[in-house]
Amino acid sequence: MRAVVIVSGGLDSVTLAHDLARRANAVHLLSFDYGQKHRKELTFAKHAAERLGARWTLIDLQASGISQLLTGSALTDNTVSIPDGHYAEETMKVTIVPNRNAVMLAIACAAASSEGADVVGAAVHAGDHFIYPDCRPEFIRSFEAMERLAMDMPSLTIEAPFLGKTKAEIVTIGSELGVPFDETWSCYKGGDLHCGTCGTCVERREAFQVAGVTDPTRYLESPSAVEVSG
Amino acid sequence: MRAVVIVSGGLDSVTLAHDLARRANAVHLLSFDYGQKHRKELTFAKHAAERLGARWTLIDLQASGISQLLTGSALTDNTVSIPDGHYAEETMKVTIVPNRNAVMLAIACAAASSEGADVVGAAVHAGDHFIYPDCRPEFIRSFEAMERLAMDMPSLTIEAPFLGKTKAEIVTIGSELGVPFDETWSCYKGGDLHCGTCGTCVERREAFQVAGVTDPTRYLESPSAVEVSG
Repeated sequence: MRAVVIVSGGLDSVTLAHDLARRANAVHLLSFDYGQKHRKELTFAKHAAERLGARWTLIDLQASGISQLLTGSALTDNTVSIPDGHYAEETMKVTIVPNRNAVMLAIACAAASSEGADVVGAAVHAGDHFIYPDCRPEFIRSFEAMERLAMDMPSLTIEAPFLGKTKAEIVTIGSELGVPFDETWSCYKGGDLHCGTCGTCVERREAFQVAGVTDPTRYLESPSAVEVSG
Repeated sequence: MRAVVIVSGGLDSVTLAHDLARRANAVHLLSFDYGQKHRKELTFAKHAAERLGARWTLIDLQASGISQLLTGSALTDNTVSIPDGHYAEETMKVTIVPNRNAVMLAIACAAASSEGADVVGAAVHAGDHFIYPDCRPEFIRSFEAMERLAMDMPSLTIEAPFLGKTKAEIVTIGSELGVPFDETWSCYKGGDLHCGTCGTCVERREAFQVAGVTDPTRYLESPSAVEVSG
């Protein structure tokens, strides 16, 4: 098996990269700069590739003019603030970047076809389903069916093993794989430390607690300052 | 209706841009530099936007590093020659750029969502089906279904009115719309004049003949030098 895997540098995608590197003959890590305020995460994607001895490619959607078309998201637009709180809240919808996963997956599939890989990995997980339509199982299955037609490649597989898993379960898997979690980045604000209060920070902290795995992350706000629901 | 339309600068997509500009309240022309040898075509996309008073955006897939992933096509790779002959030949398969339409359409759908458009236009036509899997009706329908899920946007339509039409029929439609055909570019070789012998030139010339419309194109090779089947 040869695989191309989309790696943001976050906990989920770095865990998936470790998982695929173990199972595949060759793995190619693909990362995207789409103008995210937390582009700091990309450094951790690069580190993961170095650690795994894998090829790493950074796709610059800003240089192409693509990210300039994707306006209005809190993740990319300086006029929209990153919301604090829990993912399961309507307010988190401002963090949607329209069609981001379809764009990234289509580019990853093109790379896969060019280099003779038949697996494309994506680390979407169950916690993403409420807010992000392009993280839901029906999207992933529909995308896979579309790409098999687009490239006349019936064997192409979108490998999304975390689709039905919680972030806590991913922490458990990553822990078993020996993923160095301090070499992953979640915080949408992209400061020196994880803020501890934005949607991904709340989710990250909760995941370690539920999994019973020590959280090596240094947060700007102490856990007690934020309500973490179980 | 607001529409984003992918326009290469060729006869088909410029005709579609004219068609949509007539029917839509606003139309945004999107063109892609993917390292094609015939990037000269992009000038004609820009001219079409100027003529129609429409917004034009050029997406540079080379600057992003995307086109560098798409190796091996005669359209982009200097080590692979553009084949001469008719489209309905196996040799034309070297002109496939893997997943090109899925990548371009995904970017166009992202733009549509951001700017409140619910129509994305693509000028794929019946003559493309044999060689290019990402020009077939089943691909377009599958892509539309995928995007409706990806963006939670059930009203999104991929408008591909030429899916069942021959290039000759598109010439007839363009002629009725007053499309200045000399302001369109087909030739894959991208020289000073249309070569007259590559797949798209053969198809272009044939289309005018079958439609009974005067062909304003100056070809490097005279018609008699090439066998044109009806």
